[in-house]
Parts: sequence; structure tokens; C-alpha cells
Amino acid sequence: MLGPVTTSDPLLTDRTPLPDGLDARLRDHLTFLIEVDKLKTVLRASPLAAADRRENDAEHSWHLALMVMVLAEYADEPIDVGHTIKLVVVHDLVEIYAGDTPIYDTEAGVTQVEREEAAAERLFGLLPADAGVALRALWDEFEARETPEARFAKAMDRLQPLLLNWMAQGGTWRTPGVTADDVRARKAVIGEASKALWDAGRHLIDEGERRGWARQV
Amino acid sequence: MLGPVTTSDPLLTDRTPLPDGLDARLRDHLTFLIEVDKLKTVLRASPLAAADRRENDAEHSWHLALMVMVLAEYADEPIDVGHTIKLVVVHDLVEIYAGDTPIYDTEAGVTQVEREEAAAERLFGLLPADAGVALRALWDEFEARETPEARFAKAMDRLQPLLLNWMAQGGTWRTPGVTADDVRARKAVIGEASKALWDAGRHLIDEGERRGWARQV
Repeated sequence: MLGPVTTSDPLLTDRTPLPDGLDARLRDHLTFLIEVDKLKTVLRASPLAAADRRENDAEHSWHLALMVMVLAEYADEPIDVGHTIKLVVVHDLVEIYAGDTPIYDTEAGVTQVEREEAAAERLFGLLPADAGVALRALWDEFEARETPEARFAKAMDRLQPLLLNWMAQGGTWRTPGVTADDVRARKAVIGEASKALWDAGRHLIDEGERRGWARQV
Repeated sequence: MLGPVTTSDPLLTDRTPLPDGLDARLRDHLTFLIEVDKLKTVLRASPLAAADRRENDAEHSWHLALMVMVLAEYADEPIDVGHTIKLVVVHDLVEIYAGDTPIYDTEAGVTQVEREEAAAERLFGLLPADAGVALRALWDEFEARETPEARFAKAMDRLQPLLLNWMAQGGTWRTPGVTADDVRARKAVIGEASKALWDAGRHLIDEGERRGWARQV
């Protein structure tokens, strides 16, 4: 988690301002696109499979985009793949200012909604109004999980760290106080989008529990 | 650059194999989706704007996806945004085995095609055949730059490090032997997709040269 970054911190472009002479609308687009570089500094709880460090939100979001493309055939309802990718590309942007809220951290979960709302207002507010509304709508759609695309995007968001935890032989499943049943409860949302992927996810958790990578009680 | 990773290195799932009992097709999908975690370890030459380190390919690819969504309105030809995002999500995958070839490194450029071809065969070959062909086709489309979507994707691939170099007050523009005219020549491909974005890009390079962030000769 970035920690010290808040909604009142300076923009990246306050440090090295864009030059005069740019079209005003494009200038706002570029200011936003530079500011989102901060997503690469928001660390998640998940360990990478390929290196000995934690994953950041930008890497995670890319991974979900590729998962959507590869796993779309397992969706129980038809999904628009391009639209689903858009949802995962924007789904964590608010964490630039609100920080990552680890899935098993119930205390941080309490303030998550208001922190993320303030973050959304500041971040999407950097864009020209129509563009800000469009990105905000994608984030709202992801959060509401009322469309097949949003349900599939959320399933990817739950399945990806499950794969990383498998590769780490436990990973955040070993968080103190967390049991295999907690993991199952958190991941069950995968089943709202794909029975086949939830069967596979549950199989990994069951096998992880059997091997002692997640606790029974 | 990952350096020591080659096409004969073990797969990540050789280290922690997926459990028995998964559907064979899904197992191949998941093996691929875990292997691509390695993209997060392929370092690019570009410095981040938000932190004092170099960018990796996964972060870069995510950034391009968001740029496509935000900047599509500047495309000179109509583009399918969802399809363009797919192109940028897969465009660097072969670097998992072939490594990043810095844009101003002409020596590495000589062997780039064959290294990337071998990488594509191994990486996309992990997938079920039809899925591998589909992803490979997206990579080929990106490389060929014959569709409006591929031209726009390539423009994003050139504009994004330009923004990072601006934020770094030079960045890789300061590579020994590189002049502002070299930068302009490398970035001119942006103009094949968007006159407005190339006008802006050239403006940043011109202003960078004026400030001494890129050399005249």
C-alpha cells in the first residue's frame, strides 16, 4: 500500500508540468494518464509467482485483462470481452489515493467505501467531464456486479490471486486468523460468473488445505 | 531485461505444479496464465514517473490499455477500442523469453525478430491450439501495423514512454549517442494513427530539446 499518498497530495505533473501550448482538453487527458502512473506503486498482499516480491495494482490489472481474453470461454453467460477488459483495466484506479484494501483485512474494509469515493472524485475529476463520467461509469459497473461483464471481471479479480497463492504454496492464505473456509467464502463469487472456473478454484483451495497451505480452523 | 531467462528455462508451474483433477484444457489455460507472470519481471529502459525505478512490461501494457480508452477520440481513423486494448495487452508477451529490446539499441534489434519468433512459439504453444492461434494472431496484427487498431496501439506504445521521459526530464532521451532528431524519428509512427497526438508528442520533444533534456547533435 502506498500509505502516505492521499487525495490532497500533489499531482505528478505538479513536479514536472506539461509545457504550454498543448490543446486544453488533451492536456487534461495527459495529466490524468501521467497521474495514473501511481498505480504501479500500490502494492497488493499477493506475492508474484515469477519474483520474490509483492504484486502492484498495475501488474495485477494487466494480468486480469489477459485472463479475461483467455478464460472468456468459461463464462456461464455471454460476455462482451472488450468491455470486460475495460472494467478490469479501471477497476483498481481509485486505489491510487485510497490504497489497496487486503481482502482479509476487515478493519480497513470499514472505511473502504468512503476512501474510494473521495479518490474517485479526485482522480476521474482530472479528466474532461465527459471522459471522467465514462471511466467512473465503468468503475461503478464493476463494483455493482449487475452485468455479466462485471461478474466475470470480479471473478478474474478473485481467481488471479488464488493462482498466485497456489504458486506461493499458501501466500496470503497463511494470513493469521484466516482459514480455508474463509478463503472459500471470499472466492465463491467466482461461481457467479463461471461454474467451471469456480470448480477449478475450489479444487485448488481444497488441495491447498489438504497440503497444509491453508488452515482448517 | 530478464537476461538469463531463455526458451529452454523451466515453466513456473514446473516449480509448483497444478494439482491433478483439473480439466485438461483449463489446465493448459492456467499454465499459460501463470507463466505470463514473468512479464512483470521484464524491465524496460523507461523510468517510472511515480517511483525511482524502471518500468516493467506488465505495468507498461496496462498503461497502454488505459491510454487506448482515454485517447481513442484522437484516432484519425475509426478504431474498435476493445480490439485495440487486446492488441496492447498481448503486444509484449514474447519478451518473457526474448527480453526487452530498447528502442535505441540497434545491436539488439538485429536478433530481435528471431528471438521473438522462438519466444512466441514456446509461449503461445502452452495454450490449447485454437487459443494459441488467436493470441498469436493479435501479436502478428500489432507487429504488422496494417489495421487502424494496430497503428493506434503502436502509437500508444511510442507515446507512453515519451510521457515518462518528459516526466523524468529526459530519461532515455539522454542515452549516449541519441539526439532529439533520433527521438523524433522513432516517435513519428504516432503520426500514422493520430495527427493530434503526434503534434503533442513533437511539442514535448521540441520543448525537451530546448531545455537540454535531449541533445541537438
